[in-house]
Amino acid sequence: MQKIRIGILGYGNLGKGVELAISQNKDMELVGVFTRRKADTIELITKNASVYHIDKAKEMTDIIDVMILCSGSKSDLPTQGPEFAAMFNTVDAYDTHAKIPDYYDAVNQAALKSKKTCVISSGWDPGLFSINRLYGEVVLPEGKSYTFWGKGVSQGHSDAIRRVEGVADAKQYTIPIDEALDSVRRGEMPELTTRQKHLRECFVVAKEGADISRIEQEIKTMPDYFSDYDTIVHFISKEELDRDHNKISHGGYVLQSGRTGLNKESTHIIEYGLRLDSNPDFTANVLLACARAAYRLNKEGGFGAKTVFDIAPAYLSMKSGDELRRSIL
Amino acid sequence: MQKIRIGILGYGNLGKGVELAISQNKDMELVGVFTRRKADTIELITKNASVYHIDKAKEMTDIIDVMILCSGSKSDLPTQGPEFAAMFNTVDAYDTHAKIPDYYDAVNQAALKSKKTCVISSGWDPGLFSINRLYGEVVLPEGKSYTFWGKGVSQGHSDAIRRVEGVADAKQYTIPIDEALDSVRRGEMPELTTRQKHLRECFVVAKEGADISRIEQEIKTMPDYFSDYDTIVHFISKEELDRDHNKISHGGYVLQSGRTGLNKESTHIIEYGLRLDSNPDFTANVLLACARAAYRLNKEGGFGAKTVFDIAPAYLSMKSGDELRRSIL
Repeated sequence: MQKIRIGILGYGNLGKGVELAISQNKDMELVGVFTRRKADTIELITKNASVYHIDKAKEMTDIIDVMILCSGSKSDLPTQGPEFAAMFNTVDAYDTHAKIPDYYDAVNQAALKSKKTCVISSGWDPGLFSINRLYGEVVLPEGKSYTFWGKGVSQGHSDAIRRVEGVADAKQYTIPIDEALDSVRRGEMPELTTRQKHLRECFVVAKEGADISRIEQEIKTMPDYFSDYDTIVHFISKEELDRDHNKISHGGYVLQSGRTGLNKESTHIIEYGLRLDSNPDFTANVLLACARAAYRLNKEGGFGAKTVFDIAPAYLSMKSGDELRRSIL
Repeated sequence: MQKIRIGILGYGNLGKGVELAISQNKDMELVGVFTRRKADTIELITKNASVYHIDKAKEMTDIIDVMILCSGSKSDLPTQGPEFAAMFNTVDAYDTHAKIPDYYDAVNQAALKSKKTCVISSGWDPGLFSINRLYGEVVLPEGKSYTFWGKGVSQGHSDAIRRVEGVADAKQYTIPIDEALDSVRRGEMPELTTRQKHLRECFVVAKEGADISRIEQEIKTMPDYFSDYDTIVHFISKEELDRDHNKISHGGYVLQSGRTGLNKESTHIIEYGLRLDSNPDFTANVLLACARAAYRLNKEGGFGAKTVFDIAPAYLSMKSGDELRRSIL
C-alpha cells in the first residue's frame, strides 16, 4: 500500500501532536516538518523524516500528499492558508469563527486554481462540535442547540489577563455552569444568557508590589472577555501556576433538545461530549482523519476548500465501504 | 421553492412519525401514504394528502421525489427495498445488522439500474450511532469503542417472551449497567462481557393458572435472547402493563476512549448519548433528513444504495454551505 505522505507546517504543540498521531495511522507517513526557525534547532521523534525551512516547501510538492498547517489562526493562517492551498492539499484548524467565510473564500480560490483539496477549520470546535450542531438541528428541527465549553483553558482569555498591568502570568479556565447544563439535559429548553452558561476562573501571578485589587477589578470588568461573565480571580505564586496549571486539557458539550408528536408531547435529547487530556493532541488526531479525506477527495476531483460539513464520514476512515457496513454500521 | 415531495410506505408508528416530522421541515410536503390495508380505513393528519393502496405507487413515480419505507426489516424490507429502489429514491431504517451487506447489494443493484438514490439503514442505530462509532474510531485510532443501549424497550425480546407458554403479554427493557458505563467514562478502557454491559428487565403478564416459576426459568435460560445476561422478571397484571409500560422511549450511548502522547499519557473520551421519549418519532426525523440528502445526491447523479457513511453532513441540511459556515461551523 502506498502511504499518504504528510508534511507538517509549524512545530508547536499542535505540530508535535500531528507527528505523534501519524504513528497511530498505518496508512500515513511523515515526510517532513517545515518551520520558520532554524531547521537544525529542531529534533523530531520520527526517524526518516527531516526538518526543513518553510521556504523549501515549494520544492517538495511532488513528495507530499497533504500538508497539515499547524500555525496560528490569528497572524499566520490568513496568509499561509491560501499560499499553501496554491501548492498542496492542506488541512488546518482555523478557528476565528467570525472570519471563517472570508478565509474559506481565499483558500477556495487558491485551491480551485491549483486543483487541490483543502480542509479548513477542522479540529473539535470548529470541527466535531460543528458536525454535531448540524446533525442535531437537522434531526430535531423544532428544538434548540446548546454548546458548552470546558472545563478547559482558554488561550485568548489567558493572554488578555497577561496584558493587564501588574500581571506576570495567568491561566483562565472556562467552566460550564452545572445548573444550565442540567436544565438543558432535562429537556427544559431554557433561554440562557452568556452569564448563565459559563463561569470564568482565573489564576493570576501578580508582579511584586502590584495593586491586586485593581488587577482583579480590571479583569472582571474587561469588555468582551469578562464583563458578561461571573469571574473568579485567584492570586497565586508562579510556582503554583507552573505546578498546578500546566495542563492543556479541555472539552465541552453540544446538546440538541427538541420535541415531536402531534402535541409536542415527546422530548428528545442528543448530547455529545468531549473530555480531553490534551487539547492539541486531540485536535491533531482530527486533522489527520481530515487529511485522509482531503487526499481521497482530491483523487476524485473534489477540488477547492472543504469543511467537515462537506466530508462524507466514510472518507475519514481507512476501512472500505463494505468493511464499514459489515463492522460498524 | 419547489418542495421535496414525500411518499410514505406503511402507516404504523414509524409511518405516523414521518407524517408528523414532515410538518417540521419547511422544504418538504407529503404526497401520499401507501398501504396494504384498505385505503379508506386510514385517516391522515395531513390535509391535501391521500392514502393509496401500495399497488398504486408505481403509477406515481413522477410526483414523488422520495419514498420513505416504513415497513419492517424482518419480512417486508428485504423484498420492498429493492422493489421500490427500482422506482423511487428511497430511505429506510433496515436494522438487521447481520444482513445489511446483502440488503445493500440488492438495493444497490436495483437503484443503479433505475438511476435512483436509496439510503438504507438510517435512523439512530444503525444511523446516528454508526456515524459516531466511525468518527470515534478515526479520531482515536488507538482506542476502544463502546455502544450501550437503553434504557429502552426491545421489541424483539418482548416478542420472544410472548412466545413462552403461559405468557399473555410482556415488555422487556434493555438497561445499560452503570458500573460498566462509569468505567468507560473514567477512561479505563475495560474489556466488557455481554453480561457486564446490559441488564434485561422483563414485565410479564402470565395467563391464569400458568406456572410462574417455570416461565421465569424459561425466560432466563433462553439462548441468544437472555441466557448471556442477568435478567430480572416481574409478574404484573395486564392493567399494570398497559398503564405503566406503554411508552416506546429509548436511547443509549456510543463512547470512544483513546490515548495519545509519546507515552500514551493523555486519555480522551468522546461520548454521544440519546434520550428519546419516542423511538419511532425520532427515527422518523432522522429518515427525513436522509430523504433530503437522497433527493440532492440524486440530482447530482449520486445513484445507488447509500448509508449514513456516504452522506456529507451538509446534504442533510436545508441551509446552504455558506449559511452553514456562517451560522454553525
